[in-house]
Amino acid sequence: MRQARTRLSIETGGGDLTDVTGRVVRWLGETGLSDGLLTIFCRHTSASLLVQENADPDVQRDLIAFFRRLVPEGDPLYRHTDEGPDDMPAHVRAALTQTQLSIPFEQGRMVLGTWQGIYVFEHRRRPHRRELALHALGD
Amino acid sequence: MRQARTRLSIETGGGDLTDVTGRVVRWLGETGLSDGLLTIFCRHTSASLLVQENADPDVQRDLIAFFRRLVPEGDPLYRHTDEGPDDMPAHVRAALTQTQLSIPFEQGRMVLGTWQGIYVFEHRRRPHRRELALHALGD
Amino acid sequence: MRQARTRLSIETGGGDLTDVTGRVVRWLGETGLSDGLLTIFCRHTSASLLVQENADPDVQRDLIAFFRRLVPEGDPLYRHTDEGPDDMPAHVRAALTQTQLSIPFEQGRMVLGTWQGIYVFEHRRRPHRRELALHALGD
Repeated sequence: MRQARTRLSIETGGGDLTDVTGRVVRWLGETGLSDGLLTIFCRHTSASLLVQENADPDVQRDLIAFFRRLVPEGDPLYRHTDEGPDDMPAHVRAALTQTQLSIPFEQGRMVLGTWQGIYVFEHRRRPHRRELALHALGD
Repeated sequence: MRQARTRLSIETGGGDLTDVTGRVVRWLGETGLSDGLLTIFCRHTSASLLVQENADPDVQRDLIAFFRRLVPEGDPLYRHTDEGPDDMPAHVRAALTQTQLSIPFEQGRMVLGTWQGIYVFEHRRRPHRRELALHALGD
Repeated sequence: MRQARTRLSIETGGGDLTDVTGRVVRWLGETGLSDGLLTIFCRHTSASLLVQENADPDVQRDLIAFFRRLVPEGDPLYRHTDEGPDDMPAHVRAALTQTQLSIPFEQGRMVLGTWQGIYVFEHRRRPHRRELALHALGD
């Protein structure tokens, strides 16, 4: 059994979902590992990870709209406003989703379902560069 | 150190929680592994995983009721409606809970607390067959 | 490759976030492991785990305020009220956050971002003793 690791740098568009499945698949292939466990860790508190449907783009649009309405900007509840009106909502949306995902892989392929993609969910309004730490463990 | 893996096929009842703890425990026993890390991955985007109280059935009923009210059907916010009024709410509820769980085990037993059970949360209205990928790594 | 494990007992203050990063870091150092995967599992259903900003205390205050408003006490929706008005909201808040976190580590250090801390989120009103199961796997 052995380990591999890397960092992926992701350019997000601001308030959007970026599909990173292809880049994760490519790196896993490069490790030469066949069977094991892959972990993705998002090194930020205003962006997060999501496994979601990769078929209809409206699903992603609706997900974003839901989180925007559930956790709106300009909420008088917040005291942490120094970093802009979209910063505290971004932290809350990140808390409601995932910072980390672990996905088993078999014969070099993650066990994702047919319609599952891996996304970085950018909760800030503007584009950001986000760093993911990837780790794989297996044979 | 070695690995084991399997798939569990779960018949959900529709809009409900299915306790899968027993099936996971049984499989872990069959692997013969004593100490390590078990990962459960839900291969769907309209069902998810949850660790919750296994004592009072009202807890499960209340959890379901809360998610139904927080993410109702028929919300005019959604554009993705082709697959039925319960599909987009299902994706959102899945995003708010877990697609994956990793649980350490010791002497063949997961470190779950006394009142913790592992559930598949079916977010669609109707019964579905859901597939979980299980992976264990250890000695 | 080898494994290490322990339990951490955390005294929460009630309805608050307790930073456990330092204790996790210390234990990881004691294992002598350099590279691998660390998993934290919360053995409770009315407290949970969160990776969040460790810089401005207002972020934590605002997160707590948001979850209190989103999942209020005294909600007529709930049937599970025997254990007090704060018990069922605690289960829901736990369902909306994390029971488990896995974090890769490199050269003895977790890959947390600069502003990320690991917190136990106590969802009950009163102080509790909470147990975390820690597991590390690596070289």
